[in-house]
Amino acid sequence: MLSKNQLKFYKSLQQKKHRQATQLFVVEGEKPLLELMQARAWAVDFWGFTEAFIEKHYARLKETQLAYEVLTMDEVHQLSSLEYQKAGIAVVKMPPNIALKPLPASYTLALDNVQDPGNLGTLLRLADWYGFPQVVCSQDCVEVYNPKTILSSMGSFLRVKTYYTDLPAYLAEFRDLPTLGAFMDGKNIHTFDFPKAGILVLGNEGHGISEALLPLIDVPITIPRFGGAESLNVAMAGAVLLDRMAEVVHTKFV
Amino acid sequence: MLSKNQLKFYKSLQQKKHRQATQLFVVEGEKPLLELMQARAWAVDFWGFTEAFIEKHYARLKETQLAYEVLTMDEVHQLSSLEYQKAGIAVVKMPPNIALKPLPASYTLALDNVQDPGNLGTLLRLADWYGFPQVVCSQDCVEVYNPKTILSSMGSFLRVKTYYTDLPAYLAEFRDLPTLGAFMDGKNIHTFDFPKAGILVLGNEGHGISEALLPLIDVPITIPRFGGAESLNVAMAGAVLLDRMAEVVHTKFV
Repeated sequence: MLSKNQLKFYKSLQQKKHRQATQLFVVEGEKPLLELMQARAWAVDFWGFTEAFIEKHYARLKETQLAYEVLTMDEVHQLSSLEYQKAGIAVVKMPPNIALKPLPASYTLALDNVQDPGNLGTLLRLADWYGFPQVVCSQDCVEVYNPKTILSSMGSFLRVKTYYTDLPAYLAEFRDLPTLGAFMDGKNIHTFDFPKAGILVLGNEGHGISEALLPLIDVPITIPRFGGAESLNVAMAGAVLLDRMAEVVHTKFV
Repeated sequence: MLSKNQLKFYKSLQQKKHRQATQLFVVEGEKPLLELMQARAWAVDFWGFTEAFIEKHYARLKETQLAYEVLTMDEVHQLSSLEYQKAGIAVVKMPPNIALKPLPASYTLALDNVQDPGNLGTLLRLADWYGFPQVVCSQDCVEVYNPKTILSSMGSFLRVKTYYTDLPAYLAEFRDLPTLGAFMDGKNIHTFDFPKAGILVLGNEGHGISEALLPLIDVPITIPRFGGAESLNVAMAGAVLLDRMAEVVHTKFV
């Protein structure tokens, strides 16, 4: 059972301004909490679990010797951004925003003003699945510690590093690697010969890649359209493109 | 301005039982409404637009000679499942559930117990983008007329036909075409030679393809994983697989 002040404080982390002021964010749900327990690099300020979670994972909790509070379902409900989670929450310190250089023999994903937290989380999950461990975000991208981003990343925020920076300056700095960008009228990915390493830029949901970046894109690429839909969502486009890039990066030399 | 009874009636269509009883569903938002106006095959019972929408699309509305009501923002807010739409709604008759045979020279998407309405809508949008005009759904799939499905399909529900049926019986009936199924341990899609036509089965979000269907799958296929994420969401998997299938179906003979 939490004090009123604790409840109020943890609840405030649903809001960006409080996350930024405290440099804390919330992880919730059964699987993300279990993954967080295993990810030693993260500093957790508070663990709170429901009785159901504690019962189910008793051995694990004993083994890790975590200090935790028991939360009532009502407390979880108040602290959670999810309607139906029954596991608990952790309050975690944000890691510092450490610069990421593009990997020389892989792809680095660069996101330009991606606004939807679910899209960012899904892109982290995709990057994680395909073994691309770095995502560079423009300063105006949605925050990675938004609860919806954390949720939709399904724990992948623990494995994929993010770096928020001035994206035009970043791309200008690393001109030795080919920079691909997803557009509506670039080279057809079904016939384009993907380079074995590079940077892939994905743009904003409504406006695509911003004008400031255009001179820095070496190859505009396009997912061909054969039907009536006007567009693909940025996360779907990311799925298709990362799959093609993974094919080239991870299996070309097998 | 609507009467209290009208408001109550249209509002009730947010619930499945009322949609099923009346065989009516709601389309909302600027772009879907504009697309619906052009799609002559759909029987619209009611059009209601905000003043802002009417002003913006005055010429179009005059040309189509639609009979519509003017809705206040408060009415839209009450009738809508979206928090911020400012366009209006249409109330549309559900088309009959007409049987769809698999297309002989293309792919038919078959969904087994897909539960999330956003996933179903996204899959319709993907099928539409890639030129696969048919989606067969098991009886226990989420309803295509769920407001969230309609929304996330971004108008693609108007172009992609759906057919709800007993999926094991359906697959058993059409054994002449190869049936592919997405699994965690099938053939690697990066090296698998996709047939030029077939049926692709995608399973439930948590449990995958149900046991009753397993004997009916000719080729289990898998999106290779190179990193730490445990799974891909069914819509992301659909994006990757439909892209591969479209490549084979639409360009092999160019």
